[in-house]
Amino acid sequence: MKEAHVVAIEAAVKAVSEMKEINHIYFVACGGSLAFMMPAQYIFDRELDIPASFYPSNEFVYRAPKALGKNSLVITCSHSGNTPETVKATEVAREKGAVTIALSHLEGSPLWNAAEYPVHYDWGKEADPSDLNKGVLYSLIFRILNTLSPCSKWEKAIKSVDGLGAAIEKAKAQYADTVREWGRKYKREKLIYTMGSGASYGEAYSFAICLLMEMQWINASCIHSGEYFHGPFEITDFDVPFIIILGRGATRHLDERAYNFCRKYSNEIMLVDENTFDMSDIDPEVQPYFASLLSGAVLRSLADELAYQRGHDLGVRRYMWKMEY
Amino acid sequence: MKEAHVVAIEAAVKAVSEMKEINHIYFVACGGSLAFMMPAQYIFDRELDIPASFYPSNEFVYRAPKALGKNSLVITCSHSGNTPETVKATEVAREKGAVTIALSHLEGSPLWNAAEYPVHYDWGKEADPSDLNKGVLYSLIFRILNTLSPCSKWEKAIKSVDGLGAAIEKAKAQYADTVREWGRKYKREKLIYTMGSGASYGEAYSFAICLLMEMQWINASCIHSGEYFHGPFEITDFDVPFIIILGRGATRHLDERAYNFCRKYSNEIMLVDENTFDMSDIDPEVQPYFASLLSGAVLRSLADELAYQRGHDLGVRRYMWKMEY
Repeated sequence: MKEAHVVAIEAAVKAVSEMKEINHIYFVACGGSLAFMMPAQYIFDRELDIPASFYPSNEFVYRAPKALGKNSLVITCSHSGNTPETVKATEVAREKGAVTIALSHLEGSPLWNAAEYPVHYDWGKEADPSDLNKGVLYSLIFRILNTLSPCSKWEKAIKSVDGLGAAIEKAKAQYADTVREWGRKYKREKLIYTMGSGASYGEAYSFAICLLMEMQWINASCIHSGEYFHGPFEITDFDVPFIIILGRGATRHLDERAYNFCRKYSNEIMLVDENTFDMSDIDPEVQPYFASLLSGAVLRSLADELAYQRGHDLGVRRYMWKMEY
Repeated sequence: MKEAHVVAIEAAVKAVSEMKEINHIYFVACGGSLAFMMPAQYIFDRELDIPASFYPSNEFVYRAPKALGKNSLVITCSHSGNTPETVKATEVAREKGAVTIALSHLEGSPLWNAAEYPVHYDWGKEADPSDLNKGVLYSLIFRILNTLSPCSKWEKAIKSVDGLGAAIEKAKAQYADTVREWGRKYKREKLIYTMGSGASYGEAYSFAICLLMEMQWINASCIHSGEYFHGPFEITDFDVPFIIILGRGATRHLDERAYNFCRKYSNEIMLVDENTFDMSDIDPEVQPYFASLLSGAVLRSLADELAYQRGHDLGVRRYMWKMEY
């Protein structure tokens, strides 16, 4: 990881360590950036005795949670640093006295200026994965954990961020044939369901709303594995396609239960099983927290292949960035 | 409202008032019962300086938030009182020392026995709406608010629960023609999107997963109005059907923005506008909190009409209650 990233992260962590009291941690962003932070909220829930939650930026701004204040830690993210709702959310949080940390690819952006502690991440194929958004987020949250509740586990977690690149390559290689076959087979689908829970729910959510709906104009619906049996499972049928993530973490049981039912009635399941990943580059104690990042990489390969098979480039938009909205 | 309901609610509220400290309020349930409590979480967020959040029951059980403990208030709900995940969640919360309140239609059910403070609600067409699930939930949460932060507004809110029945009838009458037309026109749709935010998000969510997916086997996807522009809006097209709730509360701007865009590109929008409801039976100060309940009643009428037009009774299931899962 680049020294500049570590310096920015450590400044943010120092501010967190100096908070007299933290009674709540808010993760606030829009769309893919919100989904990207969901595993962080999950990890804090599991490991900190401080409750954490996530909000879409404008829901946070207009709902205006009354509990937001000087005992709040607010972590926001916008890739471009220009998402107006997220800039506003960060401003609101800072005005209320919260400690604000913002992740962005663009230094000097409105978000960068809105947050007290902006943290940069790299982007693009040439960057080391530890310097990309997920590597930087995980470095930040494991350092926060190591400050608020120091433990050798967090030292190992911080080191494991450096193994992310190798682990991702292995996961992609492992799924390469399956991904190719899936793209070919499902290129004419009009609707695809995704399902996950725990640390991996965010990947299921962003695949539905960003990769399928936004970038492929394919109808999609993300189901929480724990909600599947309480309504959604009634749409299951032999020809209904699902992408199911079997997590490696505490909520795997939910995913397994949903998968075991779903596969009896649907013949069209794409399974991403985090227990099959080679995670030797990541410390065993924290593998459950990194596994969803590997699922994310496999899902991204699915989107790339689908885009190729359909001749519908992932960069094509009809509304986004094309007009006022 | 029945005296027995008031007695049970007041016992629960007394326990809340006797908590030394409350650092978090968890709403935990599955499917429709989870959706049903979402407006309560919204109201607490708006009005209490104690953070609140909601979890699907098994996500809560297996994720096992570390912050859960004696300073937690946990409110669960299961209509039958038999939902195993919700019973377990209540047991886990109680073991950890949280104050547990459970809402259920079935006295003496496993959920009833799991919670320290069970609260009954009525069911069926003959019951007064103030004694049905939503009336009882609102009576509970406004009484909790009135204990934790006493104010004439909460007295008015508690009284307004008695006006719910009349307000619902007016909303249903207002939308009767639109509902009939909608059911006829959309009976052959294979996929319907729903959209909402704030207090009304839960209604959009439960219409998608319970009414459409579960009870009509129609594909559905619920979009948060604040997330629409960050991915989902790219699937908008002239023939894509949406049901959009324009809320009456703090987040109405999000809904309006999504609706104003969506209607330019889709010709198939069913709009439920909470600002058009006659809410004279509800105190003006708390109308924004009751409006989503009226939207819920209108959406229920839509489902009834769709079921009639399709000859697919809302009570039909192929998996639920039919087998082990």
